[in-house]
Amino acid sequence: MTNICSTSRITGCQFTLFPMSSDFVDIILSTLEEVDTSKVWKETDDVTTCIRGKSIHIFDVTKAIFLHAAKTGEHVAMSGTFSIGCPGDSSGDVYMEESDKLMNESNSNSLKQQAGCKFSLYPLGREDYMDKIYEQIDLSKNTGVQVSHSHYATRLDGDVNDIFSALQQSFDNVREVVSHVTMTFTISANSPSNKG
Amino acid sequence: MTNICSTSRITGCQFTLFPMSSDFVDIILSTLEEVDTSKVWKETDDVTTCIRGKSIHIFDVTKAIFLHAAKTGEHVAMSGTFSIGCPGDSSGDVYMEESDKLMNESNSNSLKQQAGCKFSLYPLGREDYMDKIYEQIDLSKNTGVQVSHSHYATRLDGDVNDIFSALQQSFDNVREVVSHVTMTFTISANSPSNKG
Repeated sequence: MTNICSTSRITGCQFTLFPMSSDFVDIILSTLEEVDTSKVWKETDDVTTCIRGKSIHIFDVTKAIFLHAAKTGEHVAMSGTFSIGCPGDSSGDVYMEESDKLMNESNSNSLKQQAGCKFSLYPLGREDYMDKIYEQIDLSKNTGVQVSHSHYATRLDGDVNDIFSALQQSFDNVREVVSHVTMTFTISANSPSNKG
Repeated sequence: MTNICSTSRITGCQFTLFPMSSDFVDIILSTLEEVDTSKVWKETDDVTTCIRGKSIHIFDVTKAIFLHAAKTGEHVAMSGTFSIGCPGDSSGDVYMEESDKLMNESNSNSLKQQAGCKFSLYPLGREDYMDKIYEQIDLSKNTGVQVSHSHYATRLDGDVNDIFSALQQSFDNVREVVSHVTMTFTISANSPSNKG
């Protein structure tokens, strides 16, 4: 509750990887072995994993974790919330000194995987928050993924690398003009029900 | 994008049920058969399920779905976002005329299930949003569940009925004073890693 006025620009993501498979333990453990998380702070418990650091590394790591789990061919999903500028966010920022070199980019680029994703942007502390949301809904039309709208969320369909690129672009554009932003997402691959 | 000034008080929840089991299709289908969703609008695709209606029925249905899936004994989780007062939320409010009688309460009360849950409240369009969040963090200490704090979220541990009661209480109290509120949650039961 202290340090309300922290000016930290730590980005965080609290997420859970969900392999819909009885091998879920192996899939989660092997994914974590393959993904380089050395440039982010990380804490996992039985409900979520939280990573924190520079925005570029947060997106690099979350994308890589989803891609490595999805390449098993099992139906996997990931839900989480990206966050930046939380006024209570004041510790664990040692990872802000890391270089900008992405640790998982080349591996991720080599993985082709279709997915569906729903996301919602929440710019906080601003009375004009809906304008910021609508600007992003328009902007994400330019990213090569298929964009559609549903209640409470924008849906992106396409390659996982393109989907995360659109998520990152939307998040970055809003955080440039709004101090505290959160963005929820659920991404799903290899679902048997998207064949119908 | 129209009807920005709608005064609707429709509550919605966009969620996904994640059975970490190769029987995930059967678990999802049998759960949906057992839960009475007649008092909410419902739409499901391969990424999420969205339900909308009166707040009491939204919580009744989400809790029942999680409980019925968890009673299989499999590791199951559910992630989602409750929402009320979205300025774009203007259609599908026919379910607001339903009576307040809960359709799943007696079944849910008969199911005892421990779980862990992380949730975050996002009051939108208010510069004093952090005060509203902190008030709820304090309030949820009174509900019989174990409350702890982590980055970006408040954790609740206890019986699923008590956890959803705390979620509903927090959501209801904030929506009384803030027009547009969202609340994200991830709840997990039967995880092999919470034994350690």
